[in-house]
Amino acid sequence: MKVDVFFTPAGIEETAFNDKIVVVIDVLRASTTMITALENGAKEIIPVVEVEDALKVASSLFNERPILSGERHGKVIQGFDLGNSPDEFAASVVSDKSLVFCTTNGTKAILKAKSAKILALCAFLNVSVVKEFVLRTENLEYNLVILCAGKENRFSLEDAICAGLLVDKLLADKRGQSIALSDSATAARILYEKFRGNELAALRESEHGRYLASLGFAKDIEAAARIDVSQALPIMEDSIIRLQKVEKRKFKRVD
Amino acid sequence: MKVDVFFTPAGIEETAFNDKIVVVIDVLRASTTMITALENGAKEIIPVVEVEDALKVASSLFNERPILSGERHGKVIQGFDLGNSPDEFAASVVSDKSLVFCTTNGTKAILKAKSAKILALCAFLNVSVVKEFVLRTENLEYNLVILCAGKENRFSLEDAICAGLLVDKLLADKRGQSIALSDSATAARILYEKFRGNELAALRESEHGRYLASLGFAKDIEAAARIDVSQALPIMEDSIIRLQKVEKRKFKRVD
Repeated sequence: MKVDVFFTPAGIEETAFNDKIVVVIDVLRASTTMITALENGAKEIIPVVEVEDALKVASSLFNERPILSGERHGKVIQGFDLGNSPDEFAASVVSDKSLVFCTTNGTKAILKAKSAKILALCAFLNVSVVKEFVLRTENLEYNLVILCAGKENRFSLEDAICAGLLVDKLLADKRGQSIALSDSATAARILYEKFRGNELAALRESEHGRYLASLGFAKDIEAAARIDVSQALPIMEDSIIRLQKVEKRKFKRVD
Repeated sequence: MKVDVFFTPAGIEETAFNDKIVVVIDVLRASTTMITALENGAKEIIPVVEVEDALKVASSLFNERPILSGERHGKVIQGFDLGNSPDEFAASVVSDKSLVFCTTNGTKAILKAKSAKILALCAFLNVSVVKEFVLRTENLEYNLVILCAGKENRFSLEDAICAGLLVDKLLADKRGQSIALSDSATAARILYEKFRGNELAALRESEHGRYLASLGFAKDIEAAARIDVSQALPIMEDSIIRLQKVEKRKFKRVD
């Protein structure tokens, strides 16, 4: 398996994701928050890029009004139910609900990679679950692309470190398989090694971490820096993200 | 001064370079080769993106036929005089000549940043000269953007390490000035630290290094990995790259 990392979705053709296992990372905060919501019982998440798309999707759902959630510049969108803080998505709020999710970078990255063979969401919270899934999927028939959301086409340290942690875990547990790293995958791993054991400090010092703290979201950074606290494996199929159920967890191709 | 690094030119608006000092890095091989050509007496270099533009520019120069140089997929362009290997640009070949230069990633990055207040070319060859120039320019009035050419909108390890070396040198010699690093500048410096003293090995192991070696250009990699062997400071003004002359080296704004 060849492991590649894109530090941002910029300049990458959508066809680059065809036939790949794609793991999308937006540590601060979209993938962290979506993992939390699904872990807490949300039925499904429909990711959209534009606010108008969120409203359109919401009005097209017949059975129930979904929860509208997301952010612009880190803040809750006017008229939406929830923002993008993990702790807003408690079981009492999201259990059995459909969510429409609209964020500046995370959902954009997810939808850019929608032609992936398999698309999974990853954050520090569930990195070992994702590692396990990747290693078991079709005996490494497909190449892996780790797609960092970044920030407005810019490199984000927290996403790169999380990508590096996933690369590190894959290499540590590759079970005799050959794994080749691209330049960017090598770089991500080096960045992770530098901050190993100091992930929270790294997130706090990152540009977006400091921005979120300035908005009063310091608690979200702490929530996002916890490693392997979740067993949730969010998978996107037909543009809808759902939890991969335990009974379906045969790590077979989802198509 | 705020120091920022773009690992590729992808997704960055051209206006992002306005009023910035921009340092363009394409270690393998465009910036290495252009520095070598100017060091060896080339009069000027006109960078272009497309092969047709090279031919148009060449036919528009009245006084002399310029040397057409550059590459596609690492190889010399059909009908061109030279490729993109530093050792093709000896003094006996380029002295007092105008060059039209057309490469896949390097010249594209340079021209994307043409709205820069000052645009300089950097490689391992001349990194301390660039550092000195940046530190003296207008007392750090402008922010610095280090633009890595990358490869087809992808991250390149060799460019990132060279960017990190420049960041490292700026921090080591900042003369009491305050220098703030973006996430990507922090990352570049960490990557450089990892390969400090092993730059040649890093270049050889990089994706593009291996590709060039497979084409028979292993010697170019050795040439590109030499640190501070050149005093050349190539500056682009009005879309033409010339050596900043020693007598003009007051490190004042070039405009």
